[in-house]
Amino acid sequence: MHLEGQQSVLAALKARRRKIIVVFVKTGASSARILEVLAEAEAQAISVHHVSREELDNMAFGKSHGGVIVRCGRKPLDSMSDLDEILKRRSGFPLLLLLEGVENVQHLGYILRSAEALGVHAVLLKKHLWDFDETTLSRTSSGAFERMPLSKFSEVGQLDKLQKYDIQLWGCIARAKRVVYEVDLNRPIVLAVGGEKRGLSGKVRERCDGFLRIPMAPGSATSLSLTHAACLLLGEAARQRNFKDAGARHLSQKFDRE
Amino acid sequence: MHLEGQQSVLAALKARRRKIIVVFVKTGASSARILEVLAEAEAQAISVHHVSREELDNMAFGKSHGGVIVRCGRKPLDSMSDLDEILKRRSGFPLLLLLEGVENVQHLGYILRSAEALGVHAVLLKKHLWDFDETTLSRTSSGAFERMPLSKFSEVGQLDKLQKYDIQLWGCIARAKRVVYEVDLNRPIVLAVGGEKRGLSGKVRERCDGFLRIPMAPGSATSLSLTHAACLLLGEAARQRNFKDAGARHLSQKFDRE
Repeated sequence: MHLEGQQSVLAALKARRRKIIVVFVKTGASSARILEVLAEAEAQAISVHHVSREELDNMAFGKSHGGVIVRCGRKPLDSMSDLDEILKRRSGFPLLLLLEGVENVQHLGYILRSAEALGVHAVLLKKHLWDFDETTLSRTSSGAFERMPLSKFSEVGQLDKLQKYDIQLWGCIARAKRVVYEVDLNRPIVLAVGGEKRGLSGKVRERCDGFLRIPMAPGSATSLSLTHAACLLLGEAARQRNFKDAGARHLSQKFDRE
Repeated sequence: MHLEGQQSVLAALKARRRKIIVVFVKTGASSARILEVLAEAEAQAISVHHVSREELDNMAFGKSHGGVIVRCGRKPLDSMSDLDEILKRRSGFPLLLLLEGVENVQHLGYILRSAEALGVHAVLLKKHLWDFDETTLSRTSSGAFERMPLSKFSEVGQLDKLQKYDIQLWGCIARAKRVVYEVDLNRPIVLAVGGEKRGLSGKVRERCDGFLRIPMAPGSATSLSLTHAACLLLGEAARQRNFKDAGARHLSQKFDRE
């Protein structure tokens, strides 16, 4: 398989979670990120080929590969048993996101990106969208997929492992009594969000320690998409956790001033 | 042009914002929503044709038209001068969303959907993505496009009109001093979010009354996408406004219980 685009490629090289076989760079390309890619490749003794734009175009899925493509192995997914290692490395109460019924690889990419930005330590993915296209996933996640621990599970029994860490499982469902803003999210927690067609499955619900909902405006006829719901929950968790960010990294940095 | 899918078609019929020329329904279709479509069409004296699935497939962009398509006119966009009427109809402090640099019609659909669910009264769209594909927009917004006032503006001078209503314009930018959770959003406000490549334009920034940012987790390398950023801001506004929802309408209603 391959990854394309400067952000994905650089993230994959730096994360070192997957085998990078060879780097293809457009001859003459010299942006800051490309130079970083070349430096990383050299540091890791990965061979680099300089090729024409046409050759890159032929290899890529999209047209915006930004002058760099790598051939690589798949990123090994984490299993639930890797949670020990993942949580050991983190500070603060564990914050995990459980997704069920994700049907679209681009949406998975967007939510991985937001999850990383909003402080999630690992994403748990119920088996469904299985052999997702990693090239697109890495791309739409802006490289977050390369860094974010992503644990798959097929049997909900595997969630029992969470108890070992005193992590509570809270499900987002339409008819929950409590709204998200009233629930204490500043504790070890997994926030579970289900797909739009079926919501959270009965099996996941049975294991939940509590339920919460997102209040909808009076008169609105719709609801939130899966990734928007997850993003809103994580934003509220971030607010309650009051994490001190490094300050100022949202959207483009260009023109920034106040 | 046409609209496809039960949700879009029903929303368009009920909203009565655009001219519906003719309704095509799959012969024998009898879901609750289809019956509602037929009743609305009859009430509005719109002609209905019963056709085969193949005929619908040929008319539709997608395969999931759900057995119903309408031929219709475009939905008239609102102009800034319609704000009077729009705000008059609403209760509570005005909450508006300004989007700049939206490049993807599907993303626009998702954020219109969230905006409606989270209590936004109108969306202001800076001219950019202009002749967007309304069929896709209505579809991805789950019909919210049919209901939500969407005002286009090409010159930022048109934003001066907001002053008349004492509505403040707050821009979301990376380097703002204040984080969103510290800013009082329970007042007449427009929240402005820019595209990922360039952020908010200098011209919009010059008219802002204040700036806010979304804090990012320490160590994260990414940011939020435009629609996720907007959704997070609106979730925080909803929290501060503490609106009483009708209770419980998030994602699927199936299996809901606690």
